[in-house]
Amino acid sequence: MQAPAAANLWRSTPVGVVGLGLIGGSIALDLRRLGVTVHGLVHRPETALRALQRGLVDQVSTDPAVLQTCGLVVLALPLDGLLQPDPALVAALPPQAVVTDVGSVKAPVLARWQPLHPRFVASHPMAGTAAAGVEAGEAGLFSGRPWVATPDGHTEPQALETVHDLASALGARWLCCDAGGHDQAVALISHLPVLVSAALLQAADRASSGSEQPGSAAQLPTLVRALASSGFADTTRVGGGNPRLGTLMARCNQAAVVEALQTYSQCFSELAHQVELGRWGDLEQALHQAQQLRPPFVDPPAAD
Amino acid sequence: MQAPAAANLWRSTPVGVVGLGLIGGSIALDLRRLGVTVHGLVHRPETALRALQRGLVDQVSTDPAVLQTCGLVVLALPLDGLLQPDPALVAALPPQAVVTDVGSVKAPVLARWQPLHPRFVASHPMAGTAAAGVEAGEAGLFSGRPWVATPDGHTEPQALETVHDLASALGARWLCCDAGGHDQAVALISHLPVLVSAALLQAADRASSGSEQPGSAAQLPTLVRALASSGFADTTRVGGGNPRLGTLMARCNQAAVVEALQTYSQCFSELAHQVELGRWGDLEQALHQAQQLRPPFVDPPAAD
Repeated sequence: MQAPAAANLWRSTPVGVVGLGLIGGSIALDLRRLGVTVHGLVHRPETALRALQRGLVDQVSTDPAVLQTCGLVVLALPLDGLLQPDPALVAALPPQAVVTDVGSVKAPVLARWQPLHPRFVASHPMAGTAAAGVEAGEAGLFSGRPWVATPDGHTEPQALETVHDLASALGARWLCCDAGGHDQAVALISHLPVLVSAALLQAADRASSGSEQPGSAAQLPTLVRALASSGFADTTRVGGGNPRLGTLMARCNQAAVVEALQTYSQCFSELAHQVELGRWGDLEQALHQAQQLRPPFVDPPAAD
Repeated sequence: MQAPAAANLWRSTPVGVVGLGLIGGSIALDLRRLGVTVHGLVHRPETALRALQRGLVDQVSTDPAVLQTCGLVVLALPLDGLLQPDPALVAALPPQAVVTDVGSVKAPVLARWQPLHPRFVASHPMAGTAAAGVEAGEAGLFSGRPWVATPDGHTEPQALETVHDLASALGARWLCCDAGGHDQAVALISHLPVLVSAALLQAADRASSGSEQPGSAAQLPTLVRALASSGFADTTRVGGGNPRLGTLMARCNQAAVVEALQTYSQCFSELAHQVELGRWGDLEQALHQAQQLRPPFVDPPAAD
């Protein structure tokens, strides 16, 4: 897709990247490969040094003045950093720059930032690995991944087009939706799975440790660990992830996560009752339905 | 580990493999690579032909008489086929042969088969892929995977050593435990995850389809599918698996699965309450615990 020429203007001035962790570092690397100049803003001098060594940035500083000449600034900060932004950062953002973020919850970020900057665009590049910190950024992280923007009536169309062009330049699949819809969706497909998966780890541990059978009590904790297969590893991967991030997502998206938890609880109880009552026909039908449901989640149709 | 010489004797006579699906076909392929003669027993002539074409077997038949000269017979049948065995199969098993199975639930299989054959050894090679049927078998499937035997006081030691040698020859990690302990463990790490994961698919579908918000109702079902990432794909993989197998496992292991469901339900409720009540410190601590719990399940210490 050819973006309007004006949407390309950001490429001719430095792009500011605030935070050079997994997401910020990956954006910076891709931008530099495209020949765009990147100015990084970080908290600690050690991070600044390492970012230069890794070639993430052309210039880097712990002083927000480094953003002065930027036409586009990407706030690649954790959710708490976005929701309680450093006043010095806010003051240093050039008024003419387009400003976007990468937060995984959008309604509170949009509400917080729209009054702070006239050209703010709330967005969420949905890519990740288990890595974090200045060593984590990698080239090509966003290729083929969704990049969701959540504009509203106050979002400046030209600013939105600029962020669209950024996402396209990094190979991402561009989507727009309202912030509330985004937050409901990620509660279901991202935040709920963390809790479901963490509970599974706890259950496997608790049931085996708390076993009352004399014969099994000694061996069960060892046995569950020795026998856990790739299925258990897959089902528990997100539950074994970063506890701070998992908590932040639930905290910043509490209402949608609570609703998702309630729906899940209902679905789980139905399956559990089918097992308890030996309703095998109903169980097989439910598992058949689950089998049918999965492919569109795993191989979603192209959205562009 | 060097098995006693007598445990090797099975290699000098044909090995019978009853059922040539994923597990039976994979065992057959590995055995033939080791130079062992394999006799297959299947239901349908088309399967027999295909098994020959794929090189799974030296001889194959739909007639149980094909097992006549076998010193070792592996019953690679689904759980229902093991629990309600064909009388013609039982009658055709040579009394001197060692007989083992591959069922994923052990107490009912042991109870059913011990009276049927004097040299029966209940065992469970824990490997799998999503594939099924005569095309599914693959070489090396058991390499590094657990192969659990569940002997009891009636199990003949020499027969147990023979199955141990078979498992070692196929590169599996040999473990022995009591059948009840095995069934409790697989309820927690294999059968429970199927239900947890299926409920997640249902919740993502139900919550998005049943949305009451006018703005979101139309887009949410599309959005959840477009935004689902590798995390959702991993967490729902086993829930999107074969519904017949999932139901069979729950049915044949009902008591242990019900217990696992109850423990899980308790763990999940605790996490859900922490989110509902905004107890973020407790939630972070629980997620931290889950993170610590996972590595021993994913990289279990060598059990031999």
